[in-house]
Amino acid sequence: MIVGVLGGGQLGRMLALAGRRIGAQVRCFDPDAQACAGQVTELVVGNYSDKAALGRLIDGCDVVTYEFENVPIEAAAWCAERVETHPAIAALAAAQDRIEEKALLRAHGLEPVPHMLVESEPQLREAVEALGLPAVLKTCRGGYDGKGQVVLREAADIPTAWAELGSPAGEGGRLVLEGFIAFSREISLLAVRGKDGQVRLYDPVRNEHEGGILVRSRPAGEAVDPASLDRARAGITSLMAGLGYVGVLAVELFETADRRGVGEGGGGLIANEMAPRVHNSGHWTIDAAACDQFENHLRAVLGLPLGSTRTICNWEMRNLIGSVPAVGALLAEEGLRLHCYGKAEKAGRKVGHVTVVGV
Amino acid sequence: MIVGVLGGGQLGRMLALAGRRIGAQVRCFDPDAQACAGQVTELVVGNYSDKAALGRLIDGCDVVTYEFENVPIEAAAWCAERVETHPAIAALAAAQDRIEEKALLRAHGLEPVPHMLVESEPQLREAVEALGLPAVLKTCRGGYDGKGQVVLREAADIPTAWAELGSPAGEGGRLVLEGFIAFSREISLLAVRGKDGQVRLYDPVRNEHEGGILVRSRPAGEAVDPASLDRARAGITSLMAGLGYVGVLAVELFETADRRGVGEGGGGLIANEMAPRVHNSGHWTIDAAACDQFENHLRAVLGLPLGSTRTICNWEMRNLIGSVPAVGALLAEEGLRLHCYGKAEKAGRKVGHVTVVGV
Repeated sequence: MIVGVLGGGQLGRMLALAGRRIGAQVRCFDPDAQACAGQVTELVVGNYSDKAALGRLIDGCDVVTYEFENVPIEAAAWCAERVETHPAIAALAAAQDRIEEKALLRAHGLEPVPHMLVESEPQLREAVEALGLPAVLKTCRGGYDGKGQVVLREAADIPTAWAELGSPAGEGGRLVLEGFIAFSREISLLAVRGKDGQVRLYDPVRNEHEGGILVRSRPAGEAVDPASLDRARAGITSLMAGLGYVGVLAVELFETADRRGVGEGGGGLIANEMAPRVHNSGHWTIDAAACDQFENHLRAVLGLPLGSTRTICNWEMRNLIGSVPAVGALLAEEGLRLHCYGKAEKAGRKVGHVTVVGV
Repeated sequence: MIVGVLGGGQLGRMLALAGRRIGAQVRCFDPDAQACAGQVTELVVGNYSDKAALGRLIDGCDVVTYEFENVPIEAAAWCAERVETHPAIAALAAAQDRIEEKALLRAHGLEPVPHMLVESEPQLREAVEALGLPAVLKTCRGGYDGKGQVVLREAADIPTAWAELGSPAGEGGRLVLEGFIAFSREISLLAVRGKDGQVRLYDPVRNEHEGGILVRSRPAGEAVDPASLDRARAGITSLMAGLGYVGVLAVELFETADRRGVGEGGGGLIANEMAPRVHNSGHWTIDAAACDQFENHLRAVLGLPLGSTRTICNWEMRNLIGSVPAVGALLAEEGLRLHCYGKAEKAGRKVGHVTVVGV
């Protein structure tokens, strides 16, 4: 069993390590020869437009998948024409455009954040009037970990925000203004769907961010409104079925009592975004679920039976950002499981995570 | 952090995979270029007498360890003269000789199986008279997974057994006759000792064998006599301290009500043998302990804080022997975690294991 993976970062690395266990060989593809998956498995190095390199990736593969959502559609589609590729290209395309993504989520009963398309400064002004302040201006495409977005707190921020993201000097392209949601916490739901249409969901997770980067995840526990959760789960199941989705899908949701501008469909959970791949908020599953998200993604795309998504013990996951602290001090914490990604240190970069089990 | 490992089988492979997580690079050494650890990490290929190859193993290593107990002492000692090497060579030497091993176990209050040294057919006859039948004749050195041993059921078996193991045509060398223990079950205890002398024990495990090969392990549960267990734990702690042992140690014990020929020291638990390394009966720890035996062994030999040995969920471990069954059927079992070793199929060979969690 050979699985080609577009992308060779830590998610590809953890897919490869899961593959070792179940006898699936993972081969990653990345433009960066230093991509950290290359330390643990075969890495094909090439640009996404390099068909010869993509050809080396898919050679002998049973299936192709991807480990980040900004894989160029053309590259994924090129693979999909030649080898079975999951999840569906449509999911990848939707995840790459905030407007399309919100339309897709809404179509399946996952109420998105109130938002408006913005393609000019006057449109931005109109959107601010309609949605109120504060609000967040985001590029429709290419944003990641808090990049490509600006918070507007007062009308005077409009020209600055437009200059930063919308002007020719900025990142350009279409923008979206999102109404500010006074959320109590961010929840994420991870689901996996098999080729046979079976869907399994992991227990909901509560996420904490700093500077737009996930720093900590914990079990969401009993506090989430069960009816809202059921609606969200049904929405995800519907969305996956609608796309013929195979693999792991993550959906981030805001839990909120503030219903300003929000329709009735979403209940107290507002859909923020989706990731058509294994997800940072699911890393805990390696240490605290019966079958982790990486193995389950591989099982799904290979057409194998899905593994149990049951939580087997209490846990807390923390990202290591910028650098790995002194290992001796880190490992002294009882029940701590360290996962290093083998990446060079860099401010803001996710270089590892820890899961503390049995907390 | 680079850890050199003498041996490149599945234990070396799982040490390497654990090392990936905590940022420790594992480099294995094996005479067989196809040794399965080589699929997941650097493998130095050479005979144990090849000093140039051993030099490549230890080059840049922080510490050297071993993953099977039949590593030639000379090779381990050669490494130990040049690089910190754990566990102690004395432990390796004792584990390679059934007579020395039993003396060591007894010295620390771990009562061994009743036994006598046998170096001739008349001595075998005397030993049979002293220990009674049935009894098991074993080579002192080199036996593994049921190889190098013969069961004697009646006096007529004496010449045959001698011919098989003791005669010049047989494996030769010193033999030991072990009295037959009518044991109700085999228990194993896994301990890890850090450089600071801290010892942590995993929960006791019950093992089932077929044809001398471990086929299944399960939690021993509450059934083991607590006083006997405490004595065994104290014995292991004493043994490790006595040897200045660093790393994981496994001790196999028979649980028995039959005290024939057995001293008072061992209570209802009779020590069968020890393995100065990570052990098959500890594979469950990957999926069901807070910190698994492989990571804990690396933590120990690297002088890092030991991880929690706490069991986090119920489990059952089964070896895959000879071949890996159809993966699709295997993975359909709820809660099953598959661990393939990437080894060619061969009768009697351990090619993988599964742990079923939450059973």
